Amino acid sequence: MHDESIYLTSTSNEHVKRWRKLGESTRAVKKFGATLAEGLHLAQVICERRIAARSVILSEACCAQAKELAQAAAVASGKTRIYQLPAAVYDAVCPVENGTGIMIEVEALLAERPMQPIKADALYLDGVQDAGNVGTLIRTAVAAGVRHIAASRDTAGFWTPKVLRAGMGAHFAAHLYENVDVEDLRGMFDARRLAADARGGRDLFRTPGWEATPTVWMMGAEGPGLSEKALAAADARFLIDIERDCESLNVGAAAAVCLFEQRRRRLMPAH
Amino acid sequence: MHDESIYLTSTSNEHVKRWRKLGESTRAVKKFGATLAEGLHLAQVICERRIAARSVILSEACCAQAKELAQAAAVASGKTRIYQLPAAVYDAVCPVENGTGIMIEVEALLAERPMQPIKADALYLDGVQDAGNVGTLIRTAVAAGVRHIAASRDTAGFWTPKVLRAGMGAHFAAHLYENVDVEDLRGMFDARRLAADARGGRDLFRTPGWEATPTVWMMGAEGPGLSEKALAAADARFLIDIERDCESLNVGAAAAVCLFEQRRRRLMPAH
Repeated sequence: MHDESIYLTSTSNEHVKRWRKLGESTRAVKKFGATLAEGLHLAQVICERRIAARSVILSEACCAQAKELAQAAAVASGKTRIYQLPAAVYDAVCPVENGTGIMIEVEALLAERPMQPIKADALYLDGVQDAGNVGTLIRTAVAAGVRHIAASRDTAGFWTPKVLRAGMGAHFAAHLYENVDVEDLRGMFDARRLAADARGGRDLFRTPGWEATPTVWMMGAEGPGLSEKALAAADARFLIDIERDCESLNVGAAAAVCLFEQRRRRLMPAH
Repeated sequence: MHDESIYLTSTSNEHVKRWRKLGESTRAVKKFGATLAEGLHLAQVICERRIAARSVILSEACCAQAKELAQAAAVASGKTRIYQLPAAVYDAVCPVENGTGIMIEVEALLAERPMQPIKADALYLDGVQDAGNVGTLIRTAVAAGVRHIAASRDTAGFWTPKVLRAGMGAHFAAHLYENVDVEDLRGMFDARRLAADARGGRDLFRTPGWEATPTVWMMGAEGPGLSEKALAAADARFLIDIERDCESLNVGAAAAVCLFEQRRRRLMPAH
């Protein structure tokens, strides 16, 4: 084990209390500017991308792979200590269900807003509150090559541990902007604002040319969809042609269809 | 309120015990051949599609809309009673987080396997255990026009209340087959078996013609992906072209991309 392993057994330890807060409240993530990345996959991504760890936390019940990753993350981050917790303490702190015994505390890094509108593709989330959906949306966007992701104030915080877990490491390859009002988009991105709207609009597949310039795809929450304000700020509304029996797609599925149709058209300009 | 409203205040009532079991265990769903549809949206779909309710259950704390839907569901189902529960009892029974005060007990209807292979599109889920993912996959498939959905034994039960809730009513427009071994697919569907595999295969977008005949898209679980057995049973493997920084897409996003690329090609055969 790493030279500087520290055993923490008390839930009233200052670190343990901070980690617990990070898992429980979005405000704590903002206050400390930090988050908890739980799980082997996220630990792997953090090691590969050489993301600086603030703390590396292991459960005594963790597997050998978790121990190796903890060592690697601690070494890569210089003097970072490894904290070992009894399984019960770890589980009390662990922000996700089915924890795997390794957590890394990392900086919750938000991008600085561009001073001038930049020519880049982006995704805008308008009031998407479900953590799993938000994480999946970040993952899907980065996979589709859309690395600027902005969200309204009432969207789930990008860096809450649950969103981070669902993002499966995509956070570290994205530029994330929080508290972005829909009216701010114009000043940030020199791109057409395209609203995905289950209620109507142009046919995504049949409408040519929308992919020719950078786009900001705007997605709303399950149920209400995009707000009136967001629809008003859009340059065009688009509809995915679905079977009549269904009202709409899940927001993650809708974003996957729009962003990969964009990717397909960009990769295959002849078609 | 409906003539035959019955107040149940005890958690030891036989009905209350059954509902609780339906929410807690997949085995109970199978044993009783029933499930609980929670929420206003599912209640609406059940009314619209005239699905027979076995029981209609209201929380005393429910909203006016829930009461109206309960009446409609009870009337449409003939002699079905409305059960009213104190909020605390309702919450104890409610199988999903953030219940909305109305639950309808409906039959958990599985389709009969075709005697002869049928020429139809299908989706096959191989070991997808997350209930939210399975529900979203059903919703996405039905929206894309793929109404036959089959699953391996180790996939989450289609009719568990959480899967039903995530399906948002798509269950009632689908033919659902459980405990389908990958080797059984050939006898059920006269269609090409296409494996979605993040590890390799033909490029989904660049490969022409795969949509020309019916397909069974096969999707695996997060992490492990498709089993070796499923890959061996596939006629072809396909890969979605994603950015290098990402390992893979969430299974729901991957299915959305594959099934809507199929739909796009079918709708626009010239392209």
